[in-house]
Amino acid sequence: MFPYQNLHQFTRNIFLSIGCPAEDAQLATDVLLSADLRGVDSHGVARLSGYVRLWEAGRINTTPEVKVVHETPSTAVVDGDRGLGLVVAPKAMSIAVQKAEQVGTGWVSVRNSNHFGIAGYHAMQALSHDMIGLAMTNASPLVAPTHAIERLLGTNPIAVAIPAQQQPSFVADFATTTAANGKLEILQRKNLEAPTGWIQDANGQESVNPHELKAGGALLPLGGETGSHKGYCLGSVVDIFSAVLSGANYGPWVPPFVSFLPLPDNPVGAGIGHFFGAMRVDAFRPATEFKAHMDNWIKTFRNAKTKDGHEAVLIPGDPERIMEQERLSAGIPLLDPVIKDLESLGQKFKIILA
Amino acid sequence: MFPYQNLHQFTRNIFLSIGCPAEDAQLATDVLLSADLRGVDSHGVARLSGYVRLWEAGRINTTPEVKVVHETPSTAVVDGDRGLGLVVAPKAMSIAVQKAEQVGTGWVSVRNSNHFGIAGYHAMQALSHDMIGLAMTNASPLVAPTHAIERLLGTNPIAVAIPAQQQPSFVADFATTTAANGKLEILQRKNLEAPTGWIQDANGQESVNPHELKAGGALLPLGGETGSHKGYCLGSVVDIFSAVLSGANYGPWVPPFVSFLPLPDNPVGAGIGHFFGAMRVDAFRPATEFKAHMDNWIKTFRNAKTKDGHEAVLIPGDPERIMEQERLSAGIPLLDPVIKDLESLGQKFKIILA
Repeated sequence: MFPYQNLHQFTRNIFLSIGCPAEDAQLATDVLLSADLRGVDSHGVARLSGYVRLWEAGRINTTPEVKVVHETPSTAVVDGDRGLGLVVAPKAMSIAVQKAEQVGTGWVSVRNSNHFGIAGYHAMQALSHDMIGLAMTNASPLVAPTHAIERLLGTNPIAVAIPAQQQPSFVADFATTTAANGKLEILQRKNLEAPTGWIQDANGQESVNPHELKAGGALLPLGGETGSHKGYCLGSVVDIFSAVLSGANYGPWVPPFVSFLPLPDNPVGAGIGHFFGAMRVDAFRPATEFKAHMDNWIKTFRNAKTKDGHEAVLIPGDPERIMEQERLSAGIPLLDPVIKDLESLGQKFKIILA
Repeated sequence: MFPYQNLHQFTRNIFLSIGCPAEDAQLATDVLLSADLRGVDSHGVARLSGYVRLWEAGRINTTPEVKVVHETPSTAVVDGDRGLGLVVAPKAMSIAVQKAEQVGTGWVSVRNSNHFGIAGYHAMQALSHDMIGLAMTNASPLVAPTHAIERLLGTNPIAVAIPAQQQPSFVADFATTTAANGKLEILQRKNLEAPTGWIQDANGQESVNPHELKAGGALLPLGGETGSHKGYCLGSVVDIFSAVLSGANYGPWVPPFVSFLPLPDNPVGAGIGHFFGAMRVDAFRPATEFKAHMDNWIKTFRNAKTKDGHEAVLIPGDPERIMEQERLSAGIPLLDPVIKDLESLGQKFKIILA
C-alpha cells in the first residue's frame, strides 16, 4: 500500500522534472491520482511513464499556452497547445463553468490535447458550483463499429455528475464499449479469458482472448449482439462532439497513447479532442428544490428491491466514492509491474518512490 | 399499404375531433406519422387510439397553453399544460433553437407533458438551422436498474442529430434498454421468444417470454450481463434531465401511457418530462468546415471493411432514411390489428380510413 500523499509527491516531482510549471504539476497530479483513489487503476499512476514517454517523443508540450480560439456566450473552442490532457481539461472545464455562471450553461470543445485521465474527475468540477457537469473525450481507435472489422473509435467515455443535497452526488463515468480497455489489461496480466461480447478477432469473429487487440482484433461497442449499434452511436457522438466540433483528430486519425506507435498519416485535425459541459441547476429551477428531488430520486433507487442476493441497488458513483474513502486512509495498492515501472522512472529523474 | 397522405388526413381529422386547434392537429400528425415513415411502427398511428383514450380519461388537454416558466439566456423550463407531447415537444425544441441562435446553445427541460412520439423527429428540427439537435424523454417505468427487481425507469430514449454537407445527416435515436418496448410488442404479436438479455421475470431471473412484463417482469438496461450498469446510467441521466430539472414526475412516478392503468399515488411532479438541446455548429467552428469534416467522418465509417457478409457499415439514421423514402412512395404497411383499431376509431368520430 502506498499512502496517497507519497504517490502524490512522487508524481508531482515527475511532472516538475519534465518541465511542468508548479501549478500544472499539482493539477496534473490531482487529476491522475483521482483515478487511483477512485479504483480506476488503469488510468492512474500506471500511466505516468506513458505520459513521460510521450513527452520524450516530443508529443507533449509541458508549457502549453491553453487558449480560447473561438467563443459565443455559451460555447468555446479551446486549443490545448499539445499540453497534457490532465492540465488542458480542467482549464477547459473551468471555462464551461464560467460560461454557465453567466448564461446558464457552458459548452467547450477542445482540440490539440492529449489523454485527460478519468472523465469523472472533470465532470465533478461542476458539483461545487451547484451545476451538472459533463465530460467526454475521444481516444485512439480500438473499437469496431457494428458490422465492421476496422477499428475506428476509441473507448470514448462519457461522464455526467449531478449534485444532490443530503445524498452523495450522482456520478456516472463509463466507456461506450462493453468493457473498458483497462478491464482487458487486467485479464491480460492475469492471463484470464474475456467474457464473450467484449472483443472480436481480426476477422470480426467473437473472441475471448484478451490479447486479441495486438493481433488486429477490436473491442466491441456497448450493447452486445442485439444492441451494439447503440454503443456505436454513443461512441460516435463522443467522437464528433470532441473532435469534429473542435478541429481535433477523429475516428482512425486519433493519435495513440503509446509513444512507440507512429502518429497516423494525413491528420484531419490537431491532437485528440474533448468535450465539456456545465449546466447551472438554478437555470432550470431553484437549486434547493432540485437537490431535494435528487435526494428523493437517489433514495428511491437505492432502496429498490434487489435480486440475486445483492445488498442494494447502487447509485452511479457509489463504488468509486467508497473506494476513495478507503484508499485515502488505507493507501493505494499497486501491482508489482507498476511499482517496477515507477521505480525505474524515479531512477531516471532521481526521485525516490516512498 | 396506406398512402402517407391518406393516413395523414385521417390522423389530422382525429386530432381535430378531440379538440386540437388546426395548427396543433397538423403538427401532432406530422410528428406521429414520422414514426411510421421512419419504420418505428410502434410509435406511429398504432398509438393514435392510445392518445385518444388518454384524452377521454381527461389526462390530455388538447388546447394547452404551452409556456416558459423559467429561463436564462441559454435555458428554459417549459410547462406543457398537460398537452399532447406531440405538440409540446416541437414548441419546446423551437425555443431551444431560438436560444441557440442568440447565445450559441439552447437547453429546454419540459414538465407536464405526455408522450412525444419518436425522439429523432425532435432532434432533427435543429438540422436545417445548421445546429446539432438533442432530444430525450422519460417514460413510464418498465426497466429495472442493475441488481434490481423493481421497475424504476422508462425506456428513456436519446436522439442526437448532426448535420453534414453532401452526406445525409447523422441521426442516432435509441432507447437506453437492450431492446425498445416496440420490439417486444412485435414478438408478442408473433408469439416468438425474446433473445436472452432483453427481459427478466418478476423475481429478477432471465426470461425469454415476451409477455413477461404483464407478469411483473422488467426490461433490462442497455449493456447486457457485464455492462447493464452503463445503460442504467444513461436511462437515469435521461430521467433526471427530463424530469428532476423541470419538475415533472421521475422514476416510478412517471404516468403510464395506457389509460386503463391508474396514475401513481403521491406524484413528485407534473406529467412526464422531456429534455431538448440545440447547439449552433458555428458557435464552435465555421459551419462549412464542420460539415465538410462530417462528410469525411461519414464516408470513412461507411467505407470501413465489413464482417459476416454485411454490405456496408451503417451510419446512424441510414435505415430510417431509406425506409422513409420507400414508404413515401410505396405507402405505409399496417398490421391487421392496427387497421381494425383505426377503423373503430374512425367509426367513433365518423372519419373514414381510406
